Amino acid sequence: MKRVLIIHGPNVNLTGKREKEVYGDINYEEINNLIKREAAKLDIAVKIQQSNSEGEIINFIHSAENNFDAIIINPAAYTHYSLAIMDAIAAVSVPVIEVHISNIFGREDYRKTSVTASKCKGVITGFGPYSYVLALNAVKLLENSIGG
Amino acid sequence: MKRVLIIHGPNVNLTGKREKEVYGDINYEEINNLIKREAAKLDIAVKIQQSNSEGEIINFIHSAENNFDAIIINPAAYTHYSLAIMDAIAAVSVPVIEVHISNIFGREDYRKTSVTASKCKGVITGFGPYSYVLALNAVKLLENSIGG
Amino acid sequence: MKRVLIIHGPNVNLTGKREKEVYGDINYEEINNLIKREAAKLDIAVKIQQSNSEGEIINFIHSAENNFDAIIINPAAYTHYSLAIMDAIAAVSVPVIEVHISNIFGREDYRKTSVTASKCKGVITGFGPYSYVLALNAVKLLENSIGG
Amino acid sequence: MKRVLIIHGPNVNLTGKREKEVYGDINYEEINNLIKREAAKLDIAVKIQQSNSEGEIINFIHSAENNFDAIIINPAAYTHYSLAIMDAIAAVSVPVIEVHISNIFGREDYRKTSVTASKCKGVITGFGPYSYVLALNAVKLLENSIGG
Amino acid sequence: MKRVLIIHGPNVNLTGKREKEVYGDINYEEINNLIKREAAKLDIAVKIQQSNSEGEIINFIHSAENNFDAIIINPAAYTHYSLAIMDAIAAVSVPVIEVHISNIFGREDYRKTSVTASKCKGVITGFGPYSYVLALNAVKLLENSIGG
Amino acid sequence: MKRVLIIHGPNVNLTGKREKEVYGDINYEEINNLIKREAAKLDIAVKIQQSNSEGEIINFIHSAENNFDAIIINPAAYTHYSLAIMDAIAAVSVPVIEVHISNIFGREDYRKTSVTASKCKGVITGFGPYSYVLALNAVKLLENSIGG
Amino acid sequence: MKRVLIIHGPNVNLTGKREKEVYGDINYEEINNLIKREAAKLDIAVKIQQSNSEGEIINFIHSAENNFDAIIINPAAYTHYSLAIMDAIAAVSVPVIEVHISNIFGREDYRKTSVTASKCKGVITGFGPYSYVLALNAVKLLENSIGG
Amino acid sequence: MKRVLIIHGPNVNLTGKREKEVYGDINYEEINNLIKREAAKLDIAVKIQQSNSEGEIINFIHSAENNFDAIIINPAAYTHYSLAIMDAIAAVSVPVIEVHISNIFGREDYRKTSVTASKCKGVITGFGPYSYVLALNAVKLLENSIGG
Amino acid sequence: MKRVLIIHGPNVNLTGKREKEVYGDINYEEINNLIKREAAKLDIAVKIQQSNSEGEIINFIHSAENNFDAIIINPAAYTHYSLAIMDAIAAVSVPVIEVHISNIFGREDYRKTSVTASKCKGVITGFGPYSYVLALNAVKLLENSIGG
Amino acid sequence: MKRVLIIHGPNVNLTGKREKEVYGDINYEEINNLIKREAAKLDIAVKIQQSNSEGEIINFIHSAENNFDAIIINPAAYTHYSLAIMDAIAAVSVPVIEVHISNIFGREDYRKTSVTASKCKGVITGFGPYSYVLALNAVKLLENSIGG
Amino acid sequence: MKRVLIIHGPNVNLTGKREKEVYGDINYEEINNLIKREAAKLDIAVKIQQSNSEGEIINFIHSAENNFDAIIINPAAYTHYSLAIMDAIAAVSVPVIEVHISNIFGREDYRKTSVTASKCKGVITGFGPYSYVLALNAVKLLENSIGG
Amino acid sequence: MKRVLIIHGPNVNLTGKREKEVYGDINYEEINNLIKREAAKLDIAVKIQQSNSEGEIINFIHSAENNFDAIIINPAAYTHYSLAIMDAIAAVSVPVIEVHISNIFGREDYRKTSVTASKCKGVITGFGPYSYVLALNAVKLLENSIGG
Repeated sequence: MKRVLIIHGPNVNLTGKREKEVYGDINYEEINNLIKREAAKLDIAVKIQQSNSEGEIINFIHSAENNFDAIIINPAAYTHYSLAIMDAIAAVSVPVIEVHISNIFGREDYRKTSVTASKCKGVITGFGPYSYVLALNAVKLLENSIGG
Repeated sequence: MKRVLIIHGPNVNLTGKREKEVYGDINYEEINNLIKREAAKLDIAVKIQQSNSEGEIINFIHSAENNFDAIIINPAAYTHYSLAIMDAIAAVSVPVIEVHISNIFGREDYRKTSVTASKCKGVITGFGPYSYVLALNAVKLLENSIGG
Repeated sequence: MKRVLIIHGPNVNLTGKREKEVYGDINYEEINNLIKREAAKLDIAVKIQQSNSEGEIINFIHSAENNFDAIIINPAAYTHYSLAIMDAIAAVSVPVIEVHISNIFGREDYRKTSVTASKCKGVITGFGPYSYVLALNAVKLLENSIGG
Repeated sequence: MKRVLIIHGPNVNLTGKREKEVYGDINYEEINNLIKREAAKLDIAVKIQQSNSEGEIINFIHSAENNFDAIIINPAAYTHYSLAIMDAIAAVSVPVIEVHISNIFGREDYRKTSVTASKCKGVITGFGPYSYVLALNAVKLLENSIGG
Repeated sequence: MKRVLIIHGPNVNLTGKREKEVYGDINYEEINNLIKREAAKLDIAVKIQQSNSEGEIINFIHSAENNFDAIIINPAAYTHYSLAIMDAIAAVSVPVIEVHISNIFGREDYRKTSVTASKCKGVITGFGPYSYVLALNAVKLLENSIGG
Repeated sequence: MKRVLIIHGPNVNLTGKREKEVYGDINYEEINNLIKREAAKLDIAVKIQQSNSEGEIINFIHSAENNFDAIIINPAAYTHYSLAIMDAIAAVSVPVIEVHISNIFGREDYRKTSVTASKCKGVITGFGPYSYVLALNAVKLLENSIGG
Repeated sequence: MKRVLIIHGPNVNLTGKREKEVYGDINYEEINNLIKREAAKLDIAVKIQQSNSEGEIINFIHSAENNFDAIIINPAAYTHYSLAIMDAIAAVSVPVIEVHISNIFGREDYRKTSVTASKCKGVITGFGPYSYVLALNAVKLLENSIGG
Repeated sequence: MKRVLIIHGPNVNLTGKREKEVYGDINYEEINNLIKREAAKLDIAVKIQQSNSEGEIINFIHSAENNFDAIIINPAAYTHYSLAIMDAIAAVSVPVIEVHISNIFGREDYRKTSVTASKCKGVITGFGPYSYVLALNAVKLLENSIGG
Repeated sequence: MKRVLIIHGPNVNLTGKREKEVYGDINYEEINNLIKREAAKLDIAVKIQQSNSEGEIINFIHSAENNFDAIIINPAAYTHYSLAIMDAIAAVSVPVIEVHISNIFGREDYRKTSVTASKCKGVITGFGPYSYVLALNAVKLLENSIGG
Repeated sequence: MKRVLIIHGPNVNLTGKREKEVYGDINYEEINNLIKREAAKLDIAVKIQQSNSEGEIINFIHSAENNFDAIIINPAAYTHYSLAIMDAIAAVSVPVIEVHISNIFGREDYRKTSVTASKCKGVITGFGPYSYVLALNAVKLLENSIGG
Repeated sequence: MKRVLIIHGPNVNLTGKREKEVYGDINYEEINNLIKREAAKLDIAVKIQQSNSEGEIINFIHSAENNFDAIIINPAAYTHYSLAIMDAIAAVSVPVIEVHISNIFGREDYRKTSVTASKCKGVITGFGPYSYVLALNAVKLLENSIGG
Repeated sequence: MKRVLIIHGPNVNLTGKREKEVYGDINYEEINNLIKREAAKLDIAVKIQQSNSEGEIINFIHSAENNFDAIIINPAAYTHYSLAIMDAIAAVSVPVIEVHISNIFGREDYRKTSVTASKCKGVITGFGPYSYVLALNAVKLLENSIGG
């Protein structure tokens, strides 16, 4: 059974409260339930963590070494400037998949690139909460190459 | 039954011939077979087209209006400068998903952003040929919101 | 009788289908009818061509040499990056007038300049389909200097 | 009968004195005569004002509110940096058409864009003194939508 | 009794006429009344001047030397490029407070910085007409340090 | 009675220890006393928090939802790059006022703009510790529109 | 006997018609005759193709795989922005030599670099039609290393 | 006898009041006296004008046509952004010499270049009030070539 | 006896696990042992702290005031963007020496400068774990000037 | 008999010692022998000079005036920033051909353009030591136009 | 009697040979004669040196310390990039005046600023060989303040 | 016994004469004595060379090949733009350590990066003359890895 660590970055815990035209109606609890249901379906064990702190997110990434087969991370605003999270992703051997609820390419210029993604396996952006669902499927699909 | 148009951009037809460290070993025919198998599994009718021409790719996109429920496009090099393809995506009502075989964020600076993606529903990048497979699953998942 | 070649660039053929807040309600067929009526009024023979292909648009421009007294071109998205179309305009002796349906200066930053216009006689932008009408009048007005 | 305010920006009053390779041979008085003749033909009442002062040009624009159906402005050098004139254009409800004698896209890099145009209805550039003539025709053509 | 010179920059006199989503409903006369009422409450003598001209605004600033204890200025569009007003502020010994009705940081990129502010005592932006009220209070608060 | 949360960002707790030519002589404790006295005068209940951690500041902002009528924040160095704090401000419905002790426009280039301010109600910068006092008055003044 | 594919890019077919101060007097037909004579002298079989279309040029490059020992290409305006042609050059194993009639370093800034050249063997620029002649000699000289 | 028009730009009239470390101790009246004495010595008739208004400075320049043999201008802050003054200098046939009291190259980055100077005969910067004196000598020296 | 605080930034605790071609083979524990041995040899009391959190690193720096004679810091990825750590270094009177294991000038462009270093005494970069050893020697050498 | 001056720039004398993956195996002496053999074959008299000094290279260029029919120069690193060498090339009437051993377009960004080339006849880059051989042939080919 | 060192930078020795539209007809020897005559008239002892080498120019500057009252330098192309010459000017106590024959502001963009000038007393540019003459007069005028 | 070549770049020979707030009081001779004393203590044979010429510095570097175990270089102003010195460092096999007397990160923007350092072993900056002393210790420490 695959073990996957889900890391939600800053402000993701308030999803669905405001800016619904960007992030949709679904709230944080519902996103996590969706993740858990899909993981169960795919026979994946998930642990879900959220933090607003860059340092704590790095700690989460470090903690995955040897304990998880993959990380699915939504670095939220840190996506666009956290070289420290980027370095953390490079420093562990666990494959990392980056996800975004909104399509970062369809937003403000400063959200159109990702520094953290440069050290990830891949990125899935724009599918609302289904970005996480697709990432879980990606873990399954890539089993042979990335966590097998 | 969903109908999905797959559009491969310039040089995708040579995948697997050279630059294997970037694009992997799998060749163009095998990618298409993978797509067809997954589509069959998901009960999706796919049509696959490839072109090296920006104009022809725009024609493909236009042709999807009224005839397909979604487009999955890998604009390859055009991703990074084709405002014309971006405008074509905006000009049709069919939802479009952009995919890339390699992780564009892990490559040269000029490949780290996407102008075409700004008008797409979402982007899936870095999962090798499985990027297409995930995109087909995305079409299925988003059925209610984008093509239902 | 003046002969004028009208060249519509990529996606112009879909005008009026979507993004009406940008391009207005009038559709492609109606724009062409408007052009033909005005041309008849001004005693100008017009030929109208549309292409989504940068290369084909260059072919259209080349074909005007010796056969037309002026070109009216809406390069659409190619306006902003096609050095090849710019070179084509410089390579023929026929005067070229660039038109845009929307006001390019009132849109996204990347649409606020024109590389193709640098080799044109002049530019008319922002008057909806009437940009073409004004361009036909410009041909008439400039008869002595540019096509007489 | 339409009322149109013509505003000539800085140094336009010296047109035809020097830099004839850029602006042509026709002088300031002749340009104004050309404008008046075309206006008469189109049954438009024109008032012509010229100033070298950014502030006075803003005053002219303010004065048009309620008194004119359209403004035709050649902001000359202010085109490229006057956010204050741009704000004045946005602050009045009269539609504004920007004109240039030379083709700004064919000149120095700093002349290739227009900040004032971003709040205008449209722009006509490069037709020599006929740019004003075409703008008067544009007022006539757009009667229904902009001043009718 | 403190004497304060209020300087309104270009187009401020049209506030409340258009772009109400940016500047609010309150008009120019009401803003001035609000300023006068607050000044009276704080025992401050105010003189209010408005100009659309960069040069005249500089004249106003020069005139304050020896005649006023503080200047409250809303340079409007000149905020973003007038090195001449910036130099004027540096050239007088009267402390200057810059105010803006809208929050300049929440608007277009070119409005997100202020060249004039670099030589001011401080800046108050985004509180609608109350920005002026707060500035009057700032003059009062800083009496000891800046005008006492 | 209004409830206002005061958030001091990184290094604000050392104010008055060094760099007095920038931040003045008054120390952290005295600033807080000044805030408390003014709040009492205005019948505002204040809670004061300080943190050097970007993540903890985001937590403070989240905690204000439903519990405070306004936030007054001095994000200090995070002002210039924390997209995560900017997103937090956008994610809560409590109005936020940004303050700075020094005038950020009069300092190094990298301090001349504010990413966090783009989602705030307004900004007050350069009045030393009185920036906080003015912000409390702003809360009072804007009672009807922002917290009433 | 070596086989070399010559690819002329957009507008090269009009060489010698206009802009003679840039490209010289010699026309397209004469350039091709010069190429053929030199090829004969060097015992090289040449095939000459011209296209104004980016996509067709990519097709030409693909077609050279297994059929030619070297490609000599003048990408003309595409030189400066066609990542798609650059990718095509990288995707084939045939060595490619880029040539330009004029010296691209002596022209407008946007012509001073080459994106396509980054994947070529080498570049020869500025020798008029003799750039092609030198490229044929380069093929001969490099026989051992690139096509032998 | 040569006739020279001296134009002082914005804030030059306050020279010697503040920022003495930049502009020196000598005040505006003394600078003008120095100019008059040197002019007398060189048998030059000078007229001295000062304005804070960009538009009025342009008027001064226009007025020199036919009436003066040379202009000596210190455009002060307008040096760095006034394309309108630059155009005025290009529009008259009178030779123009630009002077600065301080050395613009030794100051802030935004003062290190001059847009107005691009159309001047030459520039003299950094010699305090003697910059004007040297400019008068330049007029004398260049008599044959520029005003003779 | 000198007291020196060693601060290791984000991901330094994983040194030697991956990216050995960049950071070498030596692991975190061995680096600390090397530091302790050298400190003992130089009669320096060291305290070693590591954190992945920007805020905690600032707390460490603050804690050194009055308690340490010098700080040796490896800010790792924060080097390149943490204005908050830079401000913390400026806010304490303890001299700070910045060290890097790899040579930051020999790496990616975004690692080639240091914002934190601008407020440090000096920087030692590229000597592997010996960068720390050299920094301890620097503390010793500079005893008179920086901590004596 | 043609006389050609060969100028090798900085570090070219160490070619073949290190960085063989960039410059190949052939060493400096062998390059010169290759040049001499080809020159003999083409009946060209060559003089070969090398210097690491920008000033000495300029001296070499000056010395060619009247004494040589052409210069073949490899400015090495100076290619990318030596305006002084560029000016020297413009200051002599001898035609200059720039060569590079490696393909400068395939290397680091700062090597992708050439300031010196802007004043040369043409450039040959990427053919290893054969770049010099081709340049000698270029001299021969262009005999009529450049040195005949 | 004042002693002045004249330093001519790279390629100045070829003045008058080519590019006469930029530098005029007068040649190097005549410029030096003009300098000597003016110096004699002003009772100044001049020594004239020329070098194409950045290092030698620095040596010249160093040599002036204690031996000359002023340096007049035309750094030519080094003006625009030689931080080393700029540092040399800062390292000596002799005042330095920078001159240029052509008006650097009227030329290519890369010639429009001067790094060396930032440490000079002042700059005189655009007066042909008379720039040197004016600089000698500047030395005389500034006697009291710079060399007296 | 290790042999180390010390290379002082341009203007270092004047250290201690001026700009003492940047470089300190110690003069060139004293720096060299400090170096010699430390070298003796560490049993290192040093040779010290200084030049203001980029080319001569390259010659020094070349001369170290086979004759020295390490180079310690202070490229001074050349640090920031000499690609030629950077290439020289890459072209020799001797390890190179770059030193600076002042902390380059604490100075003007154009001094905040180093092009030469990209090919060095490491950099030591900001410790005054002790930067050289630390570099000698670095040579000793790294004996096994770089010169052993």
